[in-house]
Amino acid sequence: MAADYLRWQAGIVGELKRDDQFITQNFDFEWWPDHSYGPQSGINHFEAAQCLTFASCDIYHPSQDELTGMEIAYGGDATRPLLHAPYLVMETQSQAFKQWTPYPGQLRLQAMAHLASGAMGIAYWNLFSLHNSAESYWKGVLSHDLEEGRIAREIGAIGADFAKLSPHLAGATKHSRVALVIDNHSQSALRWFAIDPGCSYNDLVMWAYSCLYELNVECDVVDVEALVPSDYDLIVTPGLYCASQQVIDGLRAFVEKGGVLVSTLRSFVSDENVTIWRTRAPHDLTYVFGMLYQEIAKPGTTTVAGKPAQRMIELLIADDAEVLERYEHRYWGEYAALTANSFGKGRAYYLATVGTKDLLKSVLRRACADAGIGLAHEWPLVVRSLRAADGSSIHFAMNFSADVRGFANPFGEVTDLLGGKAYEAGQTIDLHDWDVVVLKEA
Amino acid sequence: MAADYLRWQAGIVGELKRDDQFITQNFDFEWWPDHSYGPQSGINHFEAAQCLTFASCDIYHPSQDELTGMEIAYGGDATRPLLHAPYLVMETQSQAFKQWTPYPGQLRLQAMAHLASGAMGIAYWNLFSLHNSAESYWKGVLSHDLEEGRIAREIGAIGADFAKLSPHLAGATKHSRVALVIDNHSQSALRWFAIDPGCSYNDLVMWAYSCLYELNVECDVVDVEALVPSDYDLIVTPGLYCASQQVIDGLRAFVEKGGVLVSTLRSFVSDENVTIWRTRAPHDLTYVFGMLYQEIAKPGTTTVAGKPAQRMIELLIADDAEVLERYEHRYWGEYAALTANSFGKGRAYYLATVGTKDLLKSVLRRACADAGIGLAHEWPLVVRSLRAADGSSIHFAMNFSADVRGFANPFGEVTDLLGGKAYEAGQTIDLHDWDVVVLKEA
Amino acid sequence: MAADYLRWQAGIVGELKRDDQFITQNFDFEWWPDHSYGPQSGINHFEAAQCLTFASCDIYHPSQDELTGMEIAYGGDATRPLLHAPYLVMETQSQAFKQWTPYPGQLRLQAMAHLASGAMGIAYWNLFSLHNSAESYWKGVLSHDLEEGRIAREIGAIGADFAKLSPHLAGATKHSRVALVIDNHSQSALRWFAIDPGCSYNDLVMWAYSCLYELNVECDVVDVEALVPSDYDLIVTPGLYCASQQVIDGLRAFVEKGGVLVSTLRSFVSDENVTIWRTRAPHDLTYVFGMLYQEIAKPGTTTVAGKPAQRMIELLIADDAEVLERYEHRYWGEYAALTANSFGKGRAYYLATVGTKDLLKSVLRRACADAGIGLAHEWPLVVRSLRAADGSSIHFAMNFSADVRGFANPFGEVTDLLGGKAYEAGQTIDLHDWDVVVLKEA
Repeated sequence: MAADYLRWQAGIVGELKRDDQFITQNFDFEWWPDHSYGPQSGINHFEAAQCLTFASCDIYHPSQDELTGMEIAYGGDATRPLLHAPYLVMETQSQAFKQWTPYPGQLRLQAMAHLASGAMGIAYWNLFSLHNSAESYWKGVLSHDLEEGRIAREIGAIGADFAKLSPHLAGATKHSRVALVIDNHSQSALRWFAIDPGCSYNDLVMWAYSCLYELNVECDVVDVEALVPSDYDLIVTPGLYCASQQVIDGLRAFVEKGGVLVSTLRSFVSDENVTIWRTRAPHDLTYVFGMLYQEIAKPGTTTVAGKPAQRMIELLIADDAEVLERYEHRYWGEYAALTANSFGKGRAYYLATVGTKDLLKSVLRRACADAGIGLAHEWPLVVRSLRAADGSSIHFAMNFSADVRGFANPFGEVTDLLGGKAYEAGQTIDLHDWDVVVLKEA
Repeated sequence: MAADYLRWQAGIVGELKRDDQFITQNFDFEWWPDHSYGPQSGINHFEAAQCLTFASCDIYHPSQDELTGMEIAYGGDATRPLLHAPYLVMETQSQAFKQWTPYPGQLRLQAMAHLASGAMGIAYWNLFSLHNSAESYWKGVLSHDLEEGRIAREIGAIGADFAKLSPHLAGATKHSRVALVIDNHSQSALRWFAIDPGCSYNDLVMWAYSCLYELNVECDVVDVEALVPSDYDLIVTPGLYCASQQVIDGLRAFVEKGGVLVSTLRSFVSDENVTIWRTRAPHDLTYVFGMLYQEIAKPGTTTVAGKPAQRMIELLIADDAEVLERYEHRYWGEYAALTANSFGKGRAYYLATVGTKDLLKSVLRRACADAGIGLAHEWPLVVRSLRAADGSSIHFAMNFSADVRGFANPFGEVTDLLGGKAYEAGQTIDLHDWDVVVLKEA
Repeated sequence: MAADYLRWQAGIVGELKRDDQFITQNFDFEWWPDHSYGPQSGINHFEAAQCLTFASCDIYHPSQDELTGMEIAYGGDATRPLLHAPYLVMETQSQAFKQWTPYPGQLRLQAMAHLASGAMGIAYWNLFSLHNSAESYWKGVLSHDLEEGRIAREIGAIGADFAKLSPHLAGATKHSRVALVIDNHSQSALRWFAIDPGCSYNDLVMWAYSCLYELNVECDVVDVEALVPSDYDLIVTPGLYCASQQVIDGLRAFVEKGGVLVSTLRSFVSDENVTIWRTRAPHDLTYVFGMLYQEIAKPGTTTVAGKPAQRMIELLIADDAEVLERYEHRYWGEYAALTANSFGKGRAYYLATVGTKDLLKSVLRRACADAGIGLAHEWPLVVRSLRAADGSSIHFAMNFSADVRGFANPFGEVTDLLGGKAYEAGQTIDLHDWDVVVLKEA
């Protein structure tokens, strides 16, 4: 209904606007606990975006010592695929709340991180801090005194940086080999049929996304209805509770033809109408994963690879699958927690509980190896790349920490578009706290 | 009103049903925090049961490492006295929720525990796990795949056990020498005039019941309106806040004639209409208990027998009573916490604060000794007995733990009706984890 | 509106009452978390009091080990200035709730503390404990048994003490050199624009008040509308978020003429209509304080003088001010946390975060020295003074602790009006636990 309404509005505007004007919409993400956090439950962004000239979004995120860049990356990775095109960040924080007042340099790092996801530009909420009403402390570029302060000066300098970068970034695009699949139906279903109090669908999505992000595996966040499996080499489904027969058939074919699938607990439980499948679970994928399960349990003291299993365990009965981890527990120890299986030319992993990031990353590393995706640096050094209009590669290397950090240039000869310095392959690039370089490969 | 309504319905059904048909009602217990927990506040079971052919109940309880058997025992001890007859468990858990998925063997132990309380039989909620709607994860005997799984196989084996036991258990009865008195008025009154936030009337009842259960002292849980004191040797009143003059006179006479009374704080405070008595507390029982009190206080750092007094302390002024424990506190130390008093041919104990189970058990051990009730094994070895129709005794010995447990047969020569093995008096009987034997005494 | 309504009612009563009858109103304080705690948000006491013959209040406070006397002192210091006259305590606790059942002697200490604040007398809620309805456990002078118990005996003895004191205390008055400024607008504003969840305006007020109280600095708690700065030598403004141009001009003039001002974070942010000032903060006082600020932040790991900064930090840019403390933090370390500045003949302190009592007390000690206010004993020895009608001084010395406490008589020759004993200057006066002497200076 929300998408239909937006399409109807866009139709009206479309009749009236000039040809050089555009239509966009400021999509936002789920707001939890106090910032942008994963898929929006109020509207399906993919459906709603189809009537727009280009997509836009707002992104608010933790700052100060909690600035990781993950929400910025997620916002971009979820907005860029809506129309397979660059997008605009129509709102993001300048000062905002006392817990977000940025440390020196953080605003610049944030701005570059938006560009690194494929943003065409960013706009701040708001120009000046309001003197009345509810958003008085959603502070803007200017404080209440309306004088140019530290924040205004830092943002002014970012504008100068953008001027340097624009010639190189205009028309740049990103191609991801990995898809993270999201679904509003699964989100609703897991609100009614919760994995555990305090563990939402978005928690699973962000658990999976944050592992990819921290491994510097760039991905598209794709609505299940928009997924074209053959566009990707690796597909990840965190808690894809609802899956139609068509989606399941598509994923089975994807693996059979050589794709790599990583699924977590609570995937493929019901059809698209939230009716639980009456067959062996996971429905029509037991041969793909080489396992089935009938029972779920509370983890209690159960561990996996020495760390507590969290929230829920599905008790996997591994038939053909290679058991990578069993539950460590007196009674549940006969069941598998993590399986891998070869099916056709592809490979399928299933992680049957909520575990640590380390556990999921170990699966993703195996899956990337299977898919031929190379891994190098890890967060807090974040490296994200674009392909410029002239065909050259542009790499953003960002230090999301207060520590000085050096790394060996993993590319060929590059030039830092901001600082101007050139680096040979393998030469050490130093980043101070909350620092960034934008490297153009020759 | 609820009881009247049920009686009216039963009257209609009674005119229409065949003579070989029966009328029952599935009574349930208070649901807190997430399972059956003590007296039901919505209806008075004793009043409501009078129109039934036989009583029924549903019992849901913690499982896995938290399976103690207490809720099963309480449910039976509270339902059996309603009509002084065997009852039916119309609902109990098979798989149910992830936190209750039973360990191997627990379903069998649970089934035997129901029989040990006097149940005629049990029915599971439900046959198969639902594929739609709110109770989809109140899982049944079959999982969503509708195939025979582990749970279905275990329940099938219980049916075979029941077939073996039925010839011996048909018509079996239980006679308890101990009454635990409950009261819906006191329950309501202590909701309005709470002992302490987070400490309900049911908490007091279950504190007292769990001590009796763990000491293997079998009791009837009796509504105060149905209590015939002379039927019992020992009467326990946890938090019997409301007590009519008739009840108080009855208990005084009970002690005078040789009965043993154990009462806790907040007993005998008001009449049956929740008007606080205008006399010395406890009303018309100060001579029975040999003490009075005028003040209550928050325990703060107060201890009793070295352990923290909890929730509330009544500051007992012991006149004639033997002071078993005083409060340990700079200012409250002059007041008694636990008293014993001889009155007529009987004995009366009063515990004036919420304490540990150990403290209350120490009182109950003295009281049992006074009443000539012998004590032997303790939880997690649970021993409960029935008298078979042929006059022989049938003893259920149950191991509510994951440990192997041996115990010396405290009876004469017995035969395990399930395993078939015979044991001499004093011979060691071994129980594996969550195991049970059903011993018929010759 | 509430004040207007009360004035209308008082007008009607005024036409009907005899000349020897009086009109008063039982003002109470904010009730949080479970006792009287700072300014009342439902009515402006200063406005409402103007139609009364004399002011009254009710005061309920923690007891047992938590009895500090602070709420009693605050209640008096906030009620006495309403009409610059003695007041009546129309309600205070006798037994009340289990957490307030007083230790032996505490009732007497409490009664004397009320007199020490300038009360004409006290009335207890209530005479006897009710046998029905909601306040059954707001217990009175008599317990439910209506017999004379310990509490009644202690209160009877207090009556005898009052008889001894009345000839000396009739017509006694108190003059404070210090004003603590409160404001209902700021209270409302900081509910909407909270410093931090769980930190209310009243928390700031009581933080400041408790520091003054514990230092034995007697003060008037004055509504901002009633403040006459020239009446005082030292003015303290905790969280005076709203301040009209007139108030700001008045405080600037006060300092210029030699007054000492101590302000905390979130003072002078908006005008009286909660519109944030569009000028450098603090509005029109930057020269008085010698600093300005544009940014606020969450403290995170920030410390001040080695202790965590709490709730919020305002990032002070000290121009002329002496920086007494800087924030200790990697990025915020360039900003001041606590400043002192000389302006005209006076001095102004600004504490820009919520800190420990020790931190605020260190500021108040400096400010008292600047204002020529001497400091001696500290809580739990509480010394408060009145000027008797005959011009002599009467000092209440109170031991708010369970420890025996001796102190050197800091006055001239005095006589204890209760015990009758005389003390030379410098002679040791011994107080047992929760004890009090009332010393009349010759």
